[in-house]
Amino acid sequence: MSDEFDAVCEAVRERVVPDDAERDHLEAVIDDLVDRTEAAVADLPVDADVRLVGSTARDTWLAGDRDVDLFVCFPPEISRADLEAYGLEVGHAVLPAGHEEYAEHPYVVGEYEGYQVDLVPCIAVESASDIRSAVDRTPFHTDYVEAHLGDLADDVRLAKQFLTGIGAYGSNLRTRGFSGFLVELLVMEYGGFRPLLEAAADWHPPVELDPEDHGQASFSDPLVVIDPTDPTRNVAAVCSSANVARLQHYARDLLTNPREDLFEPRDPEPLSADEIRDGFADRGTTPIALQFATPDVVEDQLYPQLDRSLAGISDELDRRGFDVLRADRFATDETSVLLVELAVAERPAVERHEGPPVHVGDHAANFFDAYEGTDAFGPFVDGDRYVVERERAVTTAEAFLESDALFDVALGTHVQSTLEVDYDVLVGAEAVAGLAADFGRDLAAYLSPMP
Amino acid sequence: MSDEFDAVCEAVRERVVPDDAERDHLEAVIDDLVDRTEAAVADLPVDADVRLVGSTARDTWLAGDRDVDLFVCFPPEISRADLEAYGLEVGHAVLPAGHEEYAEHPYVVGEYEGYQVDLVPCIAVESASDIRSAVDRTPFHTDYVEAHLGDLADDVRLAKQFLTGIGAYGSNLRTRGFSGFLVELLVMEYGGFRPLLEAAADWHPPVELDPEDHGQASFSDPLVVIDPTDPTRNVAAVCSSANVARLQHYARDLLTNPREDLFEPRDPEPLSADEIRDGFADRGTTPIALQFATPDVVEDQLYPQLDRSLAGISDELDRRGFDVLRADRFATDETSVLLVELAVAERPAVERHEGPPVHVGDHAANFFDAYEGTDAFGPFVDGDRYVVERERAVTTAEAFLESDALFDVALGTHVQSTLEVDYDVLVGAEAVAGLAADFGRDLAAYLSPMP
Repeated sequence: MSDEFDAVCEAVRERVVPDDAERDHLEAVIDDLVDRTEAAVADLPVDADVRLVGSTARDTWLAGDRDVDLFVCFPPEISRADLEAYGLEVGHAVLPAGHEEYAEHPYVVGEYEGYQVDLVPCIAVESASDIRSAVDRTPFHTDYVEAHLGDLADDVRLAKQFLTGIGAYGSNLRTRGFSGFLVELLVMEYGGFRPLLEAAADWHPPVELDPEDHGQASFSDPLVVIDPTDPTRNVAAVCSSANVARLQHYARDLLTNPREDLFEPRDPEPLSADEIRDGFADRGTTPIALQFATPDVVEDQLYPQLDRSLAGISDELDRRGFDVLRADRFATDETSVLLVELAVAERPAVERHEGPPVHVGDHAANFFDAYEGTDAFGPFVDGDRYVVERERAVTTAEAFLESDALFDVALGTHVQSTLEVDYDVLVGAEAVAGLAADFGRDLAAYLSPMP
Repeated sequence: MSDEFDAVCEAVRERVVPDDAERDHLEAVIDDLVDRTEAAVADLPVDADVRLVGSTARDTWLAGDRDVDLFVCFPPEISRADLEAYGLEVGHAVLPAGHEEYAEHPYVVGEYEGYQVDLVPCIAVESASDIRSAVDRTPFHTDYVEAHLGDLADDVRLAKQFLTGIGAYGSNLRTRGFSGFLVELLVMEYGGFRPLLEAAADWHPPVELDPEDHGQASFSDPLVVIDPTDPTRNVAAVCSSANVARLQHYARDLLTNPREDLFEPRDPEPLSADEIRDGFADRGTTPIALQFATPDVVEDQLYPQLDRSLAGISDELDRRGFDVLRADRFATDETSVLLVELAVAERPAVERHEGPPVHVGDHAANFFDAYEGTDAFGPFVDGDRYVVERERAVTTAEAFLESDALFDVALGTHVQSTLEVDYDVLVGAEAVAGLAADFGRDLAAYLSPMP
């Protein structure tokens, strides 16, 4: 078994560890970029250090990755306005064909010799607890990993590739998985890829790790890894329960039945419209999709908003008795979809409404008076309470989604403003099958859910 | 307001208090019956006292009532066999055209001069705590009321008529309302009909009364009135929460808006088949009726069994996702019906089944292994758990009611044995409308529920 596991890891290692040619090329590109950046900094009225950060700096990038992160570290005295201005000035000088992106402040992104280069200004604070924006923390992470990684770089690569294979790699807010730094910390904590798997297989969340034994806050996340450079921060804060569970599941799976395909992301064949229609028809459910133009925000804003909207709508449909079996959200740059799959799509014209116990004096009398002589059935006595059966305003999920009541639900801000302009409601297997063109792959995954 | 209330009570009193002619006639009948019974007792080898009990003995019967209860009280030394034999011998001698009925032991019931006479043997125990069967207690109740009622007999009559009007009078197990003795105790406790109403309007169940301040047990019933002749017994044990609440509701109603019609039982016009069909169709629900031959048991056995069966079936339908909006049971001597009105009559072909959290080792692995590679969707990870969507064996309430699974439900014994022979399932408004012939009145009440 151990031999088999080792053989699988060795085969994966051959693919994910960069060869000498790739290393040499990357090194040359980096040298070149650092020189160009330092030259640009020299033209500024302030001094700044140029630092390579990220997985290329830590020797933990996966073969074939083409990302270089260069940080320009300004002294703490700099104003925010100067930081932004100088940062962009340097960025455009180094990457003349680049464009600006915006995280906590703007920076320049551009292609250079086949690499995607992020040129990010930050502030060289004394310690990670003094940071002014999240990017200021990155150099500390790089220092920490460089100092402690030892010979585990290739184990980090295996772990990253494995998490990629099981769909749990990436701390973006679409995935809510494991960040590169988190993987590095976990591999260091347990002493390698295999020990990490063996530990994860036995985790009982919440799991709390504190490599520097200096944690100063408590967290309610399923996985807590205190940032070794900041005692108040959980590096695993965005990692969802489901991704922690997924790692546990596949860790057991890989240890029990080692095989290379677990390191390869599943990429299901897109379903055709007919397959989607038949898939839902076989389940006997009523799929309903809300389809609208994708709001013009970055993915890390888009997906939390889609998730929030989907949860709000699902909860409200459940509350109204349209039992939601499962729900999901899909998006292209142009179109977003909130899909809810209902076990019950229609309710009767009347609904039970429980009043107070008859004995609670005025409250009970007010309830009775409010309904007596109306069209409602009752009030009658059931157990010790007044009950009425009153008319239900909305008897189908479709009617709810097409009513103004939809906007009483907590929706993501940009989702709400988009829906206020226009949206479509697709009801039933036949209608939802029309999503095949844009979302055939997403619906294939939806109809064949994996751990 | 007070004048109005008094006027209403006065009008009702005129109807429910027997006039002199009725009293004289009853007295003559009773004298006659007692003589005949004593003569029959004289022929026995043992001695026994003849006692008039019940509302005619207590002067609390309602004008027009034609019930006489005569008890033959044998000495405690008598064997059960002798008690039964002598009791029947006396009964048949006094009521030659009578027939036998059976409560805790057999007794004779017969008509005499327009009265229905129950001739019941009992044992003259020392105190009510020594009784061997429930009937032995009755003479103690009669003694107690005779000793304490004072001038409240007509107030008892008003209270009985009022409870009759609101459908809460009678301790039989169909009604689960207020017994005559309970009404007598309540009127004595509060000092009259109106004080009883004023108290009941403000009750906060559980209400606990103990006229003799000697209670020795605790009860979980909404209304507890400790038997003044037995410190371990709750006279109101069978009184349901709904009937307590109903008294509270109508007590407030009568005090606020005094009117005679509250003293008259509601007797709705039977609905026609068309009206029943349209009634359910307007509600948009799916009524389903289980129809079967009424089991050959007395009503006090029948209704608890119907109730138990209805609760078992309703709970199971709810558990399976066929939301029960309301349910009821109806019976004639020939036919019984369990009616459940469903908000959801059909479920999808798949159902969500939650497994254990992924982290609970063997248990989680067993769950995963059990479903992996089956037709179920998943197992997939939702939050920290494994979940599958598996095939649902029964997708309609009708299919459930027609399957053997019906018999896994806790049914009343005789209902179960009857259903094992034969039953019909009527599904939908059109089919249920066919119940009009036997149950048009019950369905009228069902579709116009009153407090």
